[in-house]
Amino acid sequence: MHILITGAAGMIGRKLTERLGIDRALNGQPVEKLTLIDIVAPARLAGFSDREKTRAADLADPGVAEKAVSERPEVIFHLAGVVSGEAELDFEKGYRTNLDGMRALLEAIRKTGDGYKPRVIFTPSIAVFGAPFPHAIPDDFHLTPLTSYGAQKAMCELLLADHHRRGMLDGVGIRLPTICVRPGKPNKAASGFFSGIIREPLAGQEAVLPVADTVRHTHASPRAAVGFLVHAASLTREQLGSRINLAMPGVSCTVAEQIEALRRVAGDKVAARIKPAPDELIKRIVAGWPQRIEAKRAAALGFAAEKSFDEIIKTHIADELGGKVAA
Amino acid sequence: MHILITGAAGMIGRKLTERLGIDRALNGQPVEKLTLIDIVAPARLAGFSDREKTRAADLADPGVAEKAVSERPEVIFHLAGVVSGEAELDFEKGYRTNLDGMRALLEAIRKTGDGYKPRVIFTPSIAVFGAPFPHAIPDDFHLTPLTSYGAQKAMCELLLADHHRRGMLDGVGIRLPTICVRPGKPNKAASGFFSGIIREPLAGQEAVLPVADTVRHTHASPRAAVGFLVHAASLTREQLGSRINLAMPGVSCTVAEQIEALRRVAGDKVAARIKPAPDELIKRIVAGWPQRIEAKRAAALGFAAEKSFDEIIKTHIADELGGKVAA
Repeated sequence: MHILITGAAGMIGRKLTERLGIDRALNGQPVEKLTLIDIVAPARLAGFSDREKTRAADLADPGVAEKAVSERPEVIFHLAGVVSGEAELDFEKGYRTNLDGMRALLEAIRKTGDGYKPRVIFTPSIAVFGAPFPHAIPDDFHLTPLTSYGAQKAMCELLLADHHRRGMLDGVGIRLPTICVRPGKPNKAASGFFSGIIREPLAGQEAVLPVADTVRHTHASPRAAVGFLVHAASLTREQLGSRINLAMPGVSCTVAEQIEALRRVAGDKVAARIKPAPDELIKRIVAGWPQRIEAKRAAALGFAAEKSFDEIIKTHIADELGGKVAA
Repeated sequence: MHILITGAAGMIGRKLTERLGIDRALNGQPVEKLTLIDIVAPARLAGFSDREKTRAADLADPGVAEKAVSERPEVIFHLAGVVSGEAELDFEKGYRTNLDGMRALLEAIRKTGDGYKPRVIFTPSIAVFGAPFPHAIPDDFHLTPLTSYGAQKAMCELLLADHHRRGMLDGVGIRLPTICVRPGKPNKAASGFFSGIIREPLAGQEAVLPVADTVRHTHASPRAAVGFLVHAASLTREQLGSRINLAMPGVSCTVAEQIEALRRVAGDKVAARIKPAPDELIKRIVAGWPQRIEAKRAAALGFAAEKSFDEIIKTHIADELGGKVAA
């Protein structure tokens, strides 16, 4: 099987590549060839095979998408995109990367013709939803994005579903919840603190909490996100029906519950490294975010996230910290 | 006030142009200048003024949208598009006209800059919704189009809402129900019979009914559709809130109720010109269509359709037949 991953140098892209390198299979078939694309050259998978290609290229540039599908990968994970904050700051770049990049990829697939019909796994986001929200967001909640990123992801969902309906590809869109704990350095995303208040204390550093600890949000680990992608690749048209874009499950909890979980897993001393530092802007942004995602269809289709925030923390310690917490 | 109408040669475009020619005003301001664009040259409005321009051009062609907004029309009615059947048959043309045309227009507006912020009235359709449906479709029903046309319209709604949210224009999208009675010759649209079974008998001709008379659907007259457009142009950002795409009201009735209305308005002899001619394909297509649209927000915002199908028939007789029915 030949697998193409776009956005392969991103956090999820790297973790998916590593998982495929370990599994060496997808849907019970051996992975024989990997093509990894991103705007910066993705890292090669150590010891995979010489049938791995990496390329630094922008899908929205002429010819790039055509070249990417020219060797007819059977499975395409389309993860490339600019994040919410950047899409809001740079209107043209957001539409170019998130919408035009997707369209170029789907056009290249369609124009290949000759029976080529790959499986395309796309990652929209719960940002396709916008406040006001019900208590929990049901699977059939309407598309009301309040960011350009959310609008672009919602447009891509519609584009993918139309290509799927017309039989040009087998598509599935998985709307990711906030990924927590994100490894690496703190970033300036408004959602960054959800990871920061766990990651920094576990690494022996202080972390700031810009919102009240009553704030509720839904989280899934990077490992769970990769699990969603791999599982999505196994679903058939019959299982998916006509509504191929699915909200993914996650752990819904308050910040106070996140902190209590950290205390249970790593002790009082670690949890004490979180310092309140109220930020009115972040408070206001976060107030418009979803709190609970029902994700009933995803659960029925076998998608599984962690069961508790304790489990999310333990996953981070195992996957990123070699099992060790800074005392 | 300078008004630009795209798709001005279409049925609704022509009727909107005529209405503006009669009113000579919009939102209480005199209409001083009209620019009419379509892929075929729109008819000039008799006796309007020399400040009327008509142009045959495709908005998706380079430079056309820029030229269309170069004289900074304050109000833009964007009606241009290919219809459902054509968008399904010709995938590329549908995306080019319905999506790229809209995007080119919005890009041209954004790039004009210098404080230019027109009011843009767009006409999506209830085709943004797809079965299965609840008993009546609420305002917050999710976007699940089952045609390329519906997908394109839904993508344009999202694009318009994002430009509106970012303050690049004042947008409003009005999702039109089936327009009935459409004047002119029968066409091959699956929905054509809804108009045909009224229009043909009133003109002294037989009409075929391809579905059971228990089929229920929602209709509004061409005059009501023009009324929606004019009213939409008057709404403020404050009135619309963040959800600027609105389902329009209409008369929900069964085919049997349509026929009874025809009998009441025009007599038994006219109603007897409808002949059952079951068509399995049309039956199947129509079975996936919405039956009732709640349109609560539209009603609260002052949009009004006819109150009964009798009224829709009388509007057709007044507007298209000079008040006369063929005995």
